Amino acid sequence: MENGPVQKWGFEVKQELDTEPATTIRDSLSSIIENINKKDPRPIIPLGYGDPAAFPCFRTAIEAEDAIVDAVRSAKYNCYSFVAGVLPTKRAIADYLNRDLPYKLSPDDVYVTLGCKQAIEIILTVLARPGANILFPRPGWPFYEGFANLKHLEVRHFDLLPEKGWEVDLDAVEALADENTVAMVIINPGNPCGNVFPYQHLQKIAETARKLRIMVLADEVYEHLIFGSTPYTPMGVFGSIVPVITLGSISKRWVVPGWRFGWLVTNDPNDILQKTGIAKSIKDCLSVYVNMPSFIQGAIPQILEKTKEDFFSKIISILKESADICYDKIKEIPCLTCPNKPEGSMFTMVKLDLSFLEDINDDMDFSMKLVREESVIVTPGIAVGLKNWLRISFGVEPSALEDGLGRIKAFCHRHAKNN
Amino acid sequence: MENGPVQKWGFEVKQELDTEPATTIRDSLSSIIENINKKDPRPIIPLGYGDPAAFPCFRTAIEAEDAIVDAVRSAKYNCYSFVAGVLPTKRAIADYLNRDLPYKLSPDDVYVTLGCKQAIEIILTVLARPGANILFPRPGWPFYEGFANLKHLEVRHFDLLPEKGWEVDLDAVEALADENTVAMVIINPGNPCGNVFPYQHLQKIAETARKLRIMVLADEVYEHLIFGSTPYTPMGVFGSIVPVITLGSISKRWVVPGWRFGWLVTNDPNDILQKTGIAKSIKDCLSVYVNMPSFIQGAIPQILEKTKEDFFSKIISILKESADICYDKIKEIPCLTCPNKPEGSMFTMVKLDLSFLEDINDDMDFSMKLVREESVIVTPGIAVGLKNWLRISFGVEPSALEDGLGRIKAFCHRHAKNN
Repeated sequence: MENGPVQKWGFEVKQELDTEPATTIRDSLSSIIENINKKDPRPIIPLGYGDPAAFPCFRTAIEAEDAIVDAVRSAKYNCYSFVAGVLPTKRAIADYLNRDLPYKLSPDDVYVTLGCKQAIEIILTVLARPGANILFPRPGWPFYEGFANLKHLEVRHFDLLPEKGWEVDLDAVEALADENTVAMVIINPGNPCGNVFPYQHLQKIAETARKLRIMVLADEVYEHLIFGSTPYTPMGVFGSIVPVITLGSISKRWVVPGWRFGWLVTNDPNDILQKTGIAKSIKDCLSVYVNMPSFIQGAIPQILEKTKEDFFSKIISILKESADICYDKIKEIPCLTCPNKPEGSMFTMVKLDLSFLEDINDDMDFSMKLVREESVIVTPGIAVGLKNWLRISFGVEPSALEDGLGRIKAFCHRHAKNN
Repeated sequence: MENGPVQKWGFEVKQELDTEPATTIRDSLSSIIENINKKDPRPIIPLGYGDPAAFPCFRTAIEAEDAIVDAVRSAKYNCYSFVAGVLPTKRAIADYLNRDLPYKLSPDDVYVTLGCKQAIEIILTVLARPGANILFPRPGWPFYEGFANLKHLEVRHFDLLPEKGWEVDLDAVEALADENTVAMVIINPGNPCGNVFPYQHLQKIAETARKLRIMVLADEVYEHLIFGSTPYTPMGVFGSIVPVITLGSISKRWVVPGWRFGWLVTNDPNDILQKTGIAKSIKDCLSVYVNMPSFIQGAIPQILEKTKEDFFSKIISILKESADICYDKIKEIPCLTCPNKPEGSMFTMVKLDLSFLEDINDDMDFSMKLVREESVIVTPGIAVGLKNWLRISFGVEPSALEDGLGRIKAFCHRHAKNN
């Protein structure tokens, strides 16, 4: 038996793991990145991801770096950490969010997670049960779909309406929901649309969700990254109308997505999430998951309390400049239309009119040829749910953005019909 | 409909989440900790967990702190990180482990994980399939059982033999395995037994696993934490006999369990894990999981390369002193027997002879009454699979350990029969 060469190993994989559906933007972009022309001497312009941390002008606040350094040097955070966050960390997050809320969150409303991604993973795990369905926006962020598929949670899509500033099609929400619907997701400020929902629209979302007896999952990872005329309103403001679970992170406002610090927060002054067992399920679920490195938790109170307004306004001013460049330059390109000037986040959706182009089949083909010829990466709209659109990230250094958009213009000109 | 008070919310939890079985030592200890007598003015002596980081004498290496500080200050690691580790980090881990191996690991053999726990989670997820079973040691570390239950992977236990220095009962392993067995787990240096497997015994384990066509999962989280006569041999040394997956971490050797930096490494010069699809499954699985904060990854090469021997020998010398104190003091307590002087890790298993005691029912009762009367926390053996034993961690400051063992002695004396 010992030397029988034909005998199989007991652990041989006979079928694929059930992990295929967890698609990410990274997956969609990986085939595009493979098309990079290494002979092009120009720098690659990355307008595909939303990760400005690579550019020196977006360097995080010195207070955030100091907080991590202080936490490590204190040697107070080398021990195992508690599962859903230590009290000072949870209190600091509650205090931070309370600045914008009409009532007070307590530390018990706060769960510390490894980035916003783990917060999504946890709430979808909690909500998944046989037969349940959930309502996601289209366009959206594909990690939601991927994770829902993995958990066998049925996904139904409502549209965001470009002609209405990417507001939620609430009639569609009402038509989609039934007695097995558990929640609807909104992302505000918007990824991928760069819109900011006005107060009144958020209130209507809350009232619709209440009528449908579903909760609202408010992805506010881009919170406070706004530079238009619409002020930012956290969905938690409407927590007394309907239970709201906020998913947030320091990744975007502090430009540190690699630090993986996020939170899941229950905005629910009527204690409906307690009474329905959701709060307990979140706790149970978090006890199984890997938790946050202790010293990052330890640094959070200092990061949230000490970061100066100067830092935030510097970031906003760069993003505003980039958003302006993006909108203005796209206007000069005949085959592209940006229906709404971005007011928040670091993305905008741009419609592709193929009738202007000679040899481009669709958004994926556009993105593939663009990277090969111009070393500019954009996300094909299909990756975020809208075929023949493009998602462009303007979370890059403004001069790189100008360069990239100039190359897109040249590309479109070269591929234009009758040219 | 909108105001109907009796209408249920769509997300109400109707059944418990399937997370119950993921028991941890922390769960077992939480009911014990509830029995702490807050009126006792003496300090609590924590001999339950293995988390020495709380004691100043176990402060981590200055080089490790410097590495994190340098990584944060460089601002090079604020971006999203790659899934299974960036190349310099994987190369540094391979180089670190190659010091003790007869062949060379490549960076492709290394997967970066959030502590050893995520490494366990990933490999058990990969190995779980309908009907599969896995062999775990008894006593062991209950997170394994918890996670296997969660993944519906059948668990079978082989004994570690106290009369043979806690070696694996290899006859039992052969009797337990069948065609659906995928792997056996060993923990070396041993948690909870404090033993170190000799080279020859590890070789026999490899040969047995090869005969049974199963892989060996070698939990080496306590690697190099040895202070007896048996040298440490990594299981990967036998990777050409049988595929070995090593689970490791900087948590224990650098005394930073809160930093959550671990790895999963394939030791498999014959490429069996590639051919059987296991390597691909590990990659797929990691692409779904939350990944490591970037700057901790960025710090790892410096931590592994720059930490001075002085630091390691200081930690070993404290642990040796503590192990000696532990073994000697326990000899003085009639109802306790430590069958083997610990040679590694920071734990030892102690047999409880209830016939010496008047009013103690079992190990749980012992632990509960001990904490109430003496403010000393120990882990009841039942939590690690051996009823009427105790797991004692000596990974505490030596004077605290002496104090704690003195209190245990007083406790046993007070509860002794005919006293």
